[in-house]
Amino acid sequence: MKIPRVAFQFRRALSGRQLVYRQYGDPAKSVEMENVSNLAPLSGQVIVRWLAAPVNPADINQIQGVYPLKPPMPAVGGNEGCGIVEKVGDNVKNVEVGSLVIPSHAGIGTWRTHGVHPAKDISAVDKDLPMEFAATLQVNPSTAYRMLKDFVDLKQGDMVVQNGANSAVGRYVIQLCKQWSIPTINVVRSRDNLQDLVDDLNSIGADHVVTEEQLLKEFRGKYKNIKLALNCVGGRSGMLISSLLAPAGYIVTYGAMSKQPLSLPAGPLIFKDIKAVGFWMSRWYDQPENAEKRQEMHDELSTMFKRGELKCPTFEKNSIDDFQKVLEKAQTQFDKKQMFVY
Amino acid sequence: MKIPRVAFQFRRALSGRQLVYRQYGDPAKSVEMENVSNLAPLSGQVIVRWLAAPVNPADINQIQGVYPLKPPMPAVGGNEGCGIVEKVGDNVKNVEVGSLVIPSHAGIGTWRTHGVHPAKDISAVDKDLPMEFAATLQVNPSTAYRMLKDFVDLKQGDMVVQNGANSAVGRYVIQLCKQWSIPTINVVRSRDNLQDLVDDLNSIGADHVVTEEQLLKEFRGKYKNIKLALNCVGGRSGMLISSLLAPAGYIVTYGAMSKQPLSLPAGPLIFKDIKAVGFWMSRWYDQPENAEKRQEMHDELSTMFKRGELKCPTFEKNSIDDFQKVLEKAQTQFDKKQMFVY
Repeated sequence: MKIPRVAFQFRRALSGRQLVYRQYGDPAKSVEMENVSNLAPLSGQVIVRWLAAPVNPADINQIQGVYPLKPPMPAVGGNEGCGIVEKVGDNVKNVEVGSLVIPSHAGIGTWRTHGVHPAKDISAVDKDLPMEFAATLQVNPSTAYRMLKDFVDLKQGDMVVQNGANSAVGRYVIQLCKQWSIPTINVVRSRDNLQDLVDDLNSIGADHVVTEEQLLKEFRGKYKNIKLALNCVGGRSGMLISSLLAPAGYIVTYGAMSKQPLSLPAGPLIFKDIKAVGFWMSRWYDQPENAEKRQEMHDELSTMFKRGELKCPTFEKNSIDDFQKVLEKAQTQFDKKQMFVY
Repeated sequence: MKIPRVAFQFRRALSGRQLVYRQYGDPAKSVEMENVSNLAPLSGQVIVRWLAAPVNPADINQIQGVYPLKPPMPAVGGNEGCGIVEKVGDNVKNVEVGSLVIPSHAGIGTWRTHGVHPAKDISAVDKDLPMEFAATLQVNPSTAYRMLKDFVDLKQGDMVVQNGANSAVGRYVIQLCKQWSIPTINVVRSRDNLQDLVDDLNSIGADHVVTEEQLLKEFRGKYKNIKLALNCVGGRSGMLISSLLAPAGYIVTYGAMSKQPLSLPAGPLIFKDIKAVGFWMSRWYDQPENAEKRQEMHDELSTMFKRGELKCPTFEKNSIDDFQKVLEKAQTQFDKKQMFVY
């Protein structure tokens, strides 16, 4: 005798824990642990057992209330991660029990051991991906990929310049360009152990690693085919990398680590047709026309990762129980990336 | 008996005077008067008797050597103007003797009473246009027209904000928007006789005329449909007008009167998808694919002018003999626009 599906699933209802916030503020104070139980999927829903979720700057800003994405409160923190589908409701076609999944867009809340989600909010990825890469495929490698694909049609002989080159996105930019035979000029801040960083970035494929001072002295006018500048710093640094651009080049801003506005002289805008635009991965995912490209991109990135052509940053792995300490570290220790592993 | 064309034209060879420069420097010192004689058109050439030519800031910068367009030396000054075709060589199809013409692109040298030009370097315009408008159709009204057409598809209900609103281009922006029912917010610098300027710009169709201070106080967040910001000032003023833009809006830079770089916070670039681009009329004319649009634009602007829908700025008219005084005034008396009338 066939057991009716709803009854069957009710019997196996799950429980879990999640990190929620009810008001904006200091993450370590606003976020609370909450128990949830009797999780069961309705039609079109799934239950995901989350495996891991990073703590990104955007997650912190969201809880502080200074990020443009504002999920309805109370909200579960975290915007990316990966998990296994534990149960599926009726009328779910895109995933099945056992699928390795990631969020389809930001805002679904990944800082939880188990969650009930509309099936459309998650997407299956390659089951063989290691947890750290799957949990971070959604934002950093995808941001690098899209910025390199969507503004300039980079051809052999073209070059890319970027600042903040040792950021998570910057490192993927270096690795993707290496695979695609696009030389990169990578600007980093001067520091005591500069040579270590230079060696590190060279080892993942950087062609040039320079400080702002070296860039000014050695690279002004040197290359005529720099078509794309990627800017996550702003201020004078953004102006510097934009000044290297060939006519009709793009400077794409995706961050502002200096907290200074991008400074753009009129001459390059008017006479060299330089264009300054921004890129936000979340907006891109939200555009329905990108659904197919999204799948292609994630497939391509996953294949590259499995071939060893892309490396994932190292994360400090934390229990959800230590969430207060983890949220504090995410705001103070920028050299270490934090991840919850459930 | 038919007289051979070349011999016929040789007999009627013309002479004239022109303002040339042989080196970059202070225009009033670098520019010299030169007599030319025995002007005769070869195949594909025409002789233009120039009627009038304005002295634009770009003309001055060109002689100073600080403008990106650098005609081969010795060069005749002036980039726009209007004239009458006096003679045509063989194989000239685009104009005829008696045509009222303007340059097809910058750099042909219009500060001269007569010039031999390749026919492709000039274009016929409506013979009924008054001299001042024909001589300035090429740059200012066309710049306003293109900036309003080429970046954002402005629809009823959309708005435009601009700084430097009392510039020559700014005034055409106001008038064109009025005709096209696009409300304008016009930012001007505070000054003693502010109300006179406000009245003046209102009289040509400005919907709002405000100082930067008023803009900040009264307009922030007031209108949700400002799709286009036109920037000829740069610096903080550029940032201010860009901050009013609706998502996916454009800020188009075509000047930098403040001599300060445009300052663009990362937030609007990333999260509001604001795009910062530049516009240079000369580049647009140089693109072969724009030939047809060029004709359409000049026809439309000419028709609007003849209907009284566009007004031309007032020029101080000067003899070519007074060129040194004129070039000095063009660099010091910015409230009066200078024009040579031959």
